[in-house]
Amino acid sequence: MTLKVYADRMSQPSRAIIIFCKVNGIDFEEARIDLSKGQHLTPEFQEINPMKKVPAIVDGRFKLFESHAILIYLACVFPGVADHWYPADLFQRAKIHSVLDWHHSNLRRGAATYVLNSTLAPLLGRPLNPVAAAEGEKVLSASLKKIESFWLKGRGRFLLGSSQPSIADLSLVCEIMQLELVNEKDRERILGPHQRVMKWIDDTKNATRPHFDEVHSVIYKVKEKLKKLQSERAIGETLSTSKTALQSKM
Amino acid sequence: MTLKVYADRMSQPSRAIIIFCKVNGIDFEEARIDLSKGQHLTPEFQEINPMKKVPAIVDGRFKLFESHAILIYLACVFPGVADHWYPADLFQRAKIHSVLDWHHSNLRRGAATYVLNSTLAPLLGRPLNPVAAAEGEKVLSASLKKIESFWLKGRGRFLLGSSQPSIADLSLVCEIMQLELVNEKDRERILGPHQRVMKWIDDTKNATRPHFDEVHSVIYKVKEKLKKLQSERAIGETLSTSKTALQSKM
Repeated sequence: MTLKVYADRMSQPSRAIIIFCKVNGIDFEEARIDLSKGQHLTPEFQEINPMKKVPAIVDGRFKLFESHAILIYLACVFPGVADHWYPADLFQRAKIHSVLDWHHSNLRRGAATYVLNSTLAPLLGRPLNPVAAAEGEKVLSASLKKIESFWLKGRGRFLLGSSQPSIADLSLVCEIMQLELVNEKDRERILGPHQRVMKWIDDTKNATRPHFDEVHSVIYKVKEKLKKLQSERAIGETLSTSKTALQSKM
Repeated sequence: MTLKVYADRMSQPSRAIIIFCKVNGIDFEEARIDLSKGQHLTPEFQEINPMKKVPAIVDGRFKLFESHAILIYLACVFPGVADHWYPADLFQRAKIHSVLDWHHSNLRRGAATYVLNSTLAPLLGRPLNPVAAAEGEKVLSASLKKIESFWLKGRGRFLLGSSQPSIADLSLVCEIMQLELVNEKDRERILGPHQRVMKWIDDTKNATRPHFDEVHSVIYKVKEKLKKLQSERAIGETLSTSKTALQSKM
């Protein structure tokens, strides 16, 4: 039975799983769970993941959720996966676990909070929240600084000084790619000071082409949609301001 | 060279590592890093963990931080550790990873935010924050509900229906034990509705005695200190109220 991956490509951990499968030639069926339509909240999907989140997988009778757990599982059970993704060496593996655990309360928390509250919320029917966005940006910037100064230390182009990417590179870079949704000025302000991070993103893209770009293409479509929404809102606000100005003259 | 564990027993993941070592007969040296004295911020400790957090370990020339990564490492490299702590079986292991990953953004986030902002902050020289405490409690209660209804499902007494504890039981129970610091009424309100969680805490205590109680004894000492601090503050407030009342009568 083919591996089934329940995912929404707008979710950064979903993209990491899909890219991992494609790069490693793992045969899988993608079941789209559209978050913007609330498909993760249906009773059918709760049978797959009671936490109502993507990604999740079903492999035969085995169900699993949480993207890092899934990446480790896939790297271990599919024989074609090259060792560098999740090395058998216990010391290298321990360091990868350390990056992945660190990620949850740092880069993930900062980036997801910032992008949701500064940009994405209206698409999910929620208001923007500048206070939450500012808090998210603080955690995000501190995390990027730690990636630049500590996790990318060493000779190699990838995390932990490796010469080839691991599941940690894939998970973290997919998270940072969510910043493509944000407007250019803000993205430049946040990422600009971290040249080594920018180079590492490119290196990870290059190591996983053409799948990386193909799986991320959805982001640019949503970005267009967001721009349209923002310009409609701006026109709405201008009209409403003109109306108020007219009324006050009357 | 003996394994060195850098820890503060007031930190819940530090306690999980120490208990794990003691229960499994792992020879180690405990290096106390007193968080209340800012010892995690010294340049010496940053050589051990640049993220300035406990726990961290040094095993020969190998340094590691992030408690889940440490627990997995210890379970893999020390031959005396029983399989149930971190099973060799890939499917069981994947489920344990899933619990551990889930923990970061759910139970850990909720409990740590709640305890800090409702109770612990004054000991660290920070003010209490009722708004942040309420947000933390929401995440904490939702997490306890998920543990009760999902992770503890099945026949066994431990997470994932197991008959013996894993590193996930130890990590999550040490987190919940932090609630011992909170006043009884609040603790009862939060934990009371989750009878199965309460039983699981007892089962985990019993499976790791006497080390569990010994390592947690510090919590009860700090609780006494907190009570004293609270009653001094209450007296201070009463005096200041009486003074205001007197002044208004004058």
